[in-house]
Amino acid sequence: MKLFRFLALVLIASSVFAQSKKSSPNKDAVIKSVEVHQQELIKISDAIWGYAETALQEHKSSKELADYAEKQGFKVTRGVAQMPTAFIAEFGSGKPIIGIMGEYDALPGISQKAQPTKEALHTGGGGHGCGHNLFGAGSLGAAVAIKELIQQGKLKGTIRFYGTPAEEAVGGKIYMARDGLFNDVDVCLDWHPDIETTALTQSSQAMVDFIVEFKGKAAHAAADPWNGRSAVDGMELFLDGVNMLREHVKPSVRMHYAIKAGGDVPNVVPEYAKVWMWVRDSKRDGVEAVFSRVKDIAKGAALMAGIESTITIQTGDYELLVNRTGATALQKNLEKLGPIIYTPEEISFAKKIQEASGGEQVGLNGAIQPLKETEKDPSGGSTDVGDISWIVPEITLVATTAPENTAWHGWSVVACAGMSIGHKGMLFASKALAMTMVDLFENEQLRKDVRAEFEKKRNGHVYKAYIPDGPPPVPTN
Amino acid sequence: MKLFRFLALVLIASSVFAQSKKSSPNKDAVIKSVEVHQQELIKISDAIWGYAETALQEHKSSKELADYAEKQGFKVTRGVAQMPTAFIAEFGSGKPIIGIMGEYDALPGISQKAQPTKEALHTGGGGHGCGHNLFGAGSLGAAVAIKELIQQGKLKGTIRFYGTPAEEAVGGKIYMARDGLFNDVDVCLDWHPDIETTALTQSSQAMVDFIVEFKGKAAHAAADPWNGRSAVDGMELFLDGVNMLREHVKPSVRMHYAIKAGGDVPNVVPEYAKVWMWVRDSKRDGVEAVFSRVKDIAKGAALMAGIESTITIQTGDYELLVNRTGATALQKNLEKLGPIIYTPEEISFAKKIQEASGGEQVGLNGAIQPLKETEKDPSGGSTDVGDISWIVPEITLVATTAPENTAWHGWSVVACAGMSIGHKGMLFASKALAMTMVDLFENEQLRKDVRAEFEKKRNGHVYKAYIPDGPPPVPTN
Amino acid sequence: MKLFRFLALVLIASSVFAQSKKSSPNKDAVIKSVEVHQQELIKISDAIWGYAETALQEHKSSKELADYAEKQGFKVTRGVAQMPTAFIAEFGSGKPIIGIMGEYDALPGISQKAQPTKEALHTGGGGHGCGHNLFGAGSLGAAVAIKELIQQGKLKGTIRFYGTPAEEAVGGKIYMARDGLFNDVDVCLDWHPDIETTALTQSSQAMVDFIVEFKGKAAHAAADPWNGRSAVDGMELFLDGVNMLREHVKPSVRMHYAIKAGGDVPNVVPEYAKVWMWVRDSKRDGVEAVFSRVKDIAKGAALMAGIESTITIQTGDYELLVNRTGATALQKNLEKLGPIIYTPEEISFAKKIQEASGGEQVGLNGAIQPLKETEKDPSGGSTDVGDISWIVPEITLVATTAPENTAWHGWSVVACAGMSIGHKGMLFASKALAMTMVDLFENEQLRKDVRAEFEKKRNGHVYKAYIPDGPPPVPTN
Amino acid sequence: MKLFRFLALVLIASSVFAQSKKSSPNKDAVIKSVEVHQQELIKISDAIWGYAETALQEHKSSKELADYAEKQGFKVTRGVAQMPTAFIAEFGSGKPIIGIMGEYDALPGISQKAQPTKEALHTGGGGHGCGHNLFGAGSLGAAVAIKELIQQGKLKGTIRFYGTPAEEAVGGKIYMARDGLFNDVDVCLDWHPDIETTALTQSSQAMVDFIVEFKGKAAHAAADPWNGRSAVDGMELFLDGVNMLREHVKPSVRMHYAIKAGGDVPNVVPEYAKVWMWVRDSKRDGVEAVFSRVKDIAKGAALMAGIESTITIQTGDYELLVNRTGATALQKNLEKLGPIIYTPEEISFAKKIQEASGGEQVGLNGAIQPLKETEKDPSGGSTDVGDISWIVPEITLVATTAPENTAWHGWSVVACAGMSIGHKGMLFASKALAMTMVDLFENEQLRKDVRAEFEKKRNGHVYKAYIPDGPPPVPTN
Repeated sequence: MKLFRFLALVLIASSVFAQSKKSSPNKDAVIKSVEVHQQELIKISDAIWGYAETALQEHKSSKELADYAEKQGFKVTRGVAQMPTAFIAEFGSGKPIIGIMGEYDALPGISQKAQPTKEALHTGGGGHGCGHNLFGAGSLGAAVAIKELIQQGKLKGTIRFYGTPAEEAVGGKIYMARDGLFNDVDVCLDWHPDIETTALTQSSQAMVDFIVEFKGKAAHAAADPWNGRSAVDGMELFLDGVNMLREHVKPSVRMHYAIKAGGDVPNVVPEYAKVWMWVRDSKRDGVEAVFSRVKDIAKGAALMAGIESTITIQTGDYELLVNRTGATALQKNLEKLGPIIYTPEEISFAKKIQEASGGEQVGLNGAIQPLKETEKDPSGGSTDVGDISWIVPEITLVATTAPENTAWHGWSVVACAGMSIGHKGMLFASKALAMTMVDLFENEQLRKDVRAEFEKKRNGHVYKAYIPDGPPPVPTN
Repeated sequence: MKLFRFLALVLIASSVFAQSKKSSPNKDAVIKSVEVHQQELIKISDAIWGYAETALQEHKSSKELADYAEKQGFKVTRGVAQMPTAFIAEFGSGKPIIGIMGEYDALPGISQKAQPTKEALHTGGGGHGCGHNLFGAGSLGAAVAIKELIQQGKLKGTIRFYGTPAEEAVGGKIYMARDGLFNDVDVCLDWHPDIETTALTQSSQAMVDFIVEFKGKAAHAAADPWNGRSAVDGMELFLDGVNMLREHVKPSVRMHYAIKAGGDVPNVVPEYAKVWMWVRDSKRDGVEAVFSRVKDIAKGAALMAGIESTITIQTGDYELLVNRTGATALQKNLEKLGPIIYTPEEISFAKKIQEASGGEQVGLNGAIQPLKETEKDPSGGSTDVGDISWIVPEITLVATTAPENTAWHGWSVVACAGMSIGHKGMLFASKALAMTMVDLFENEQLRKDVRAEFEKKRNGHVYKAYIPDGPPPVPTN
Repeated sequence: MKLFRFLALVLIASSVFAQSKKSSPNKDAVIKSVEVHQQELIKISDAIWGYAETALQEHKSSKELADYAEKQGFKVTRGVAQMPTAFIAEFGSGKPIIGIMGEYDALPGISQKAQPTKEALHTGGGGHGCGHNLFGAGSLGAAVAIKELIQQGKLKGTIRFYGTPAEEAVGGKIYMARDGLFNDVDVCLDWHPDIETTALTQSSQAMVDFIVEFKGKAAHAAADPWNGRSAVDGMELFLDGVNMLREHVKPSVRMHYAIKAGGDVPNVVPEYAKVWMWVRDSKRDGVEAVFSRVKDIAKGAALMAGIESTITIQTGDYELLVNRTGATALQKNLEKLGPIIYTPEEISFAKKIQEASGGEQVGLNGAIQPLKETEKDPSGGSTDVGDISWIVPEITLVATTAPENTAWHGWSVVACAGMSIGHKGMLFASKALAMTMVDLFENEQLRKDVRAEFEKKRNGHVYKAYIPDGPPPVPTN
Repeated sequence: MKLFRFLALVLIASSVFAQSKKSSPNKDAVIKSVEVHQQELIKISDAIWGYAETALQEHKSSKELADYAEKQGFKVTRGVAQMPTAFIAEFGSGKPIIGIMGEYDALPGISQKAQPTKEALHTGGGGHGCGHNLFGAGSLGAAVAIKELIQQGKLKGTIRFYGTPAEEAVGGKIYMARDGLFNDVDVCLDWHPDIETTALTQSSQAMVDFIVEFKGKAAHAAADPWNGRSAVDGMELFLDGVNMLREHVKPSVRMHYAIKAGGDVPNVVPEYAKVWMWVRDSKRDGVEAVFSRVKDIAKGAALMAGIESTITIQTGDYELLVNRTGATALQKNLEKLGPIIYTPEEISFAKKIQEASGGEQVGLNGAIQPLKETEKDPSGGSTDVGDISWIVPEITLVATTAPENTAWHGWSVVACAGMSIGHKGMLFASKALAMTMVDLFENEQLRKDVRAEFEKKRNGHVYKAYIPDGPPPVPTN
């Protein structure tokens, strides 16, 4: 997840719901299955944590998960959607087809040991600052539990695990979506490491990621600057224009950029400049409207500086279509499972992190948060799960794997993702997702209701990925 | 003159030239004539000084001069070139036709008494901060002197006085030039009040004066600014672009502007903005090249802000084509006349002004400055005499009417223009210009040489005024 | 009101509430009283509509209301808070003291006849485009009704009418608040013309209104621009800085400005520049935080341009502290009164306006809108009623006086404010406010509950006006 | 030399001077000496051309020259001024001490074969696009010739060769000057490859080279940009300020920059930004005045963006103090030597280059250009020879080593520097510099006159290098 989404959420203490205590044999079975495979799942997660491979470099991480799925009897297809580290593991046949996604890419430069004080495991190396090692293994654990029930004839249909790389960069799911790999799925699930535990009912921002380049004409900056056309002038004017546009976009819009090239040496009028920019809004329409203005701004800036400009779309996320029907089903299972309970050592670990981060030392929040109202606008952040949610109804869990009051995408999240705090969140997620999949396999009406809400919200829109044809560029960190 | 051109000139003390002391009866006659009419000329000058009428409002001033010319026997045509305050006074017939120009417009807001300390004559009123009251009367005095010689049969041809209004604003000469009023002239002369005395050998800057307007769409700035398109945003971007362009123009270019409209109230996204701007360079070609860039900048800025822009040319001056042959002839007459001599009271008056202005108290400089080399680039400033110099060879005198070390276009220049310091400069100019006209009437070879230099420098260029058809807009001060 | 606040409100059709039909003799009496005085109130309103006097110029309008109050037996104090057009009209004695406010200033430049097509009554004159002619008369009508009950001994305490000028400009209420004129009031009421009818439950934005001035050093822009320090450069940099700040303020913030001075003529480096600016946010704390950044931006811009800057606060509004207890009491009375019913002629009048405005021709909305949830952030707009709401619990009604789908602060609002559509809204407001005051006089517990909510929300904050000592500057339109 | 200085120079065909044909045995001897050592000098030059080592990496190049000097009997001190590639080679003793400088650093990225069409010798490698391979060897050849005369007792005093590295980057001479290595020299000489041949009489620009860094506070650009303080905002404002300053600096000033850091990824408010900038003017005072404004602009921009800024001076050149007395002495020797004569093959080589460069095919200009007037302002460009010229009188030759109408610092200059066209210029320079050194050793009055002009122009100024203590940073190309 590309943001600290949760920071803005109201953290209300878990309320006690009247819980349905009615027993369900299949649910009991999946809980049992996760417990049986527990050590294997932790081992996989820890291995991926140790590899800490960044986007599209997740060769060992991807193999770890795919090999395990294969060993468990899944039919595995590797290298899908032109990405060597993307794969699909499937079991069973026929309808319904329930999908579940797992991520496993790390973030560059935040290598960290599994300890409550900052210290790199491999200096300069990557780290799982978004907990994707847990994400992949946890989802696969849920898929395995369902597979066993299908194998035993207790559920009918297909379970399909999606190994989705590069969430932190190009958005691997978008390439898989573009290539139609989700088209036949009935319902899809995923989860994400977090600082609290609940069924997600908030959307995420739609986003477009693009490059603006300016090409001018070099000249000696002291001898004949009047013969030069500065690409950097054009870029500065473009940025001025973007900053003025801020007054004239809705409050839900976010625009941000980094200057990636702005001249080599002072004494040459620079002929090349480059900006990397994102535009986000609550809905894709809003993004398109602003992006259209940004295109004009680039053209206008180039005209002003007497140079050329080009805009190249790199990728783009859709906003998440929240499925409250699905979320409500998931939430019931969370409440059945009850809160995640921590040992005094784990709480102390969390408090040390909070101390080191200068945050209030409140420990860990394992309580199940009540289902929240869906806000009109999401807080700032985007995810490629959004794209999937426009093809198939999507149900998302967030589960605690780290304490609050410390920076997400930082060393402390890496630390927790490599020890028991993270493991507990992962196993909880495995169980909760598997239970919800039991509901979806068993309950046709639930599938219909989930689909009906999806169709109503999608409102006939036909998904089209932002990305062009061909494989994604491999990022260089 | 729209500048403190002289401030940048090297002030070398007058050297003593070997002067031709050969007597010329006609030159003696014109000197005598100016002395005979001296009190009348001073009276006219003082009257115009008192009227202090600004551009295109010079009704009384223009009448003062035209009536005197008529009384002296000139054939006067009033209201030429669609300007009620422009006129031509002519005497004689046939070739050669020698022209001489006089200005008489004041500057707004600098009313001042004829005293060495700052005090308005009429609070808020105009003042002759560029000494044009002297300019008009001085030139007319020279024309009268020549007229007498033609009348007496001592010179053959036509003397023509041009009453040229609005130099400080739209440039009356440009309208007269556009309408062909200078086309049949052989040589034209003018002079300008200054802080030193010499034949002018420096050019002035070519210039274009234009308005840039931006039109957007209003919206409530708090309730729905996203529905507005800010004209002020476009203007700010335009100005950013202009300021970036400065790196990429030659050092001789000058660009400057004033913001004339930028929104009424904060709580409305402004739908209108307006900039008044000038671009100058040493030559018209340079101005055109930069102006072309500025047009693109306005278009680009409008595109960036999602609005419309328009550029309207108001007027434009050509650079002055220096005629060194003519200047050399004039310079000889200056040297014949010798320096302007001041009384102790006048010197004290000047020093008080310098004291009040915080400048060094060096008094007045009545010495004849030697002819200077023509610099590659003029110092900053423009004049509508430049336009005339592309139609007919132009000879320009500058004569001391105020002390140095005080701001031109300021109260102190007004003060001196209304008392004996100014009068002395004016009478000196009358004599010097009349003497040079005697040379031009008597000496066909001189006329040919002056014309030859002119043709060589003009190099086939056909003059075309910047201004559109129709009369000038009357400025509102 | 300085905004189209209502445009962003959800316009839900009036639902039918189970209305308490229990009779209340005092409520019946005030309804009757308004009906008795109906023609007088309309006459006053129409007179003020005709005067159309703008802020602090409302001499005749203010007199119209004050004279009527005096005639009705109120004790009138004119010229309070150093404003000749502010007054207080009081009747009764002792506690409780219930206040009610009335405005009467017009907007410049939107003179309009009482007809459904655009045509000025007095070309260039002002107009009641915010319906304040109705506001003043309507509130006074309610006060008169209460006065009669006190006079008859049916209610005990004091009724106090506040004649509050200049809402559209400096904010007259702020001056009255600063001078302590509201300190002893128990509850205060007001209403505002609108396109719908309901008890207001939305806040308004806190705001600060200030001037930023830049002072540099003039120089000739062509001859020696290097000796100048451009005030306009400083202003442009300031605005660049403000536009960059937009990325780093919360989405609820609004910043907007108008350039009021930016140079006189192009050929002088400008020594003076001036921006008029507003900063708004949902709460005063937010405004203060942003304003503090803006002050640094002005200082930094001045340092960059080598000039001086000064910031002068003109005025500032507090956000409105919504009192839901009071609003609920008011809402009950609205529902008792039932919807405003229009004649076919009135509906046709409204539709013609909507046609002329290019809006959907839906006619008038006289239905009582249900009480709305209070949004976290108000939509964009501010009012000086906000200041009063921090001194005393404030209850605000909005009542339909104009159709939707046409611009507020425009000719069509003026038109309706001068004929029966406006009159109906005004009389409805008189009745509803008087009924609610009956509740407040009769029901001590209601007063206590209203006060309790107020104290809780105010949370110990001591009101301090933004404005300095002394009388307000009289605006020049 | 960091510029195309010569492009702006008027290229007047060589006029024929009345040349003194009086024989001078020592001058004949030095000419002979250069001819004797000719093949060695060419070999050294070609070796350095092949190494093409960039600034402070010139280990082999420096060794090539130092070893040869040592072999010729000079006392060599290597690694002076904390630079391993700087050295001094000295011969003789006592006064006068005549210095001569040689450079040998190449430019990165312009590797080229010695052929008239563009083709890299080593792809991506450096190249002698400023002809410094010729510069070092040519100067050393002159020093060797003088050494032989001292050795033979025909001249008395000391000859000292300065091996000065890194002219194209940090300016090695500035470090040597800072460390006092030129303090005891009577007169110093140097030359530079060029497109024409003359004694240099034009100054170069004073310059300061500095880094501006901005440090803000990171935040998630979508989730809470209001908690970030963007370093890039500060940088953009700084650049806006610099671009506005352009209007208010003299036409001789040049300011130019490259953006070296401007954010890593769009979704983080950038906490770091960096600009590399140069300010130049005709005189150091002018540079200081502008630099002082730039410092304020950086401070103001940081204040506006709520961040920190720091400015770090990297280096700075003084303007060259032209010594016309010395130049006149040099010019006489040039005229004695007469023009450089080219073969038809060399002319054809030059024309092919001009064809490939799109320039007029005028061939080579080997004529001796007449001594030019010293312009008020140099054309744009700077050199660290400027620093030396403030410590000791400096005489500079420019000699043709490449054709005109092609870009300096480009492949064509590399090509010529590696074949006979370059060699001819180098040998001509050796002879001319040696002859002028003969004059300086033999003629005490000449030394006095040269010194007198120097002292008059230096006017008591005590040289202080821009650079801090310690060795220079080694550039990474």
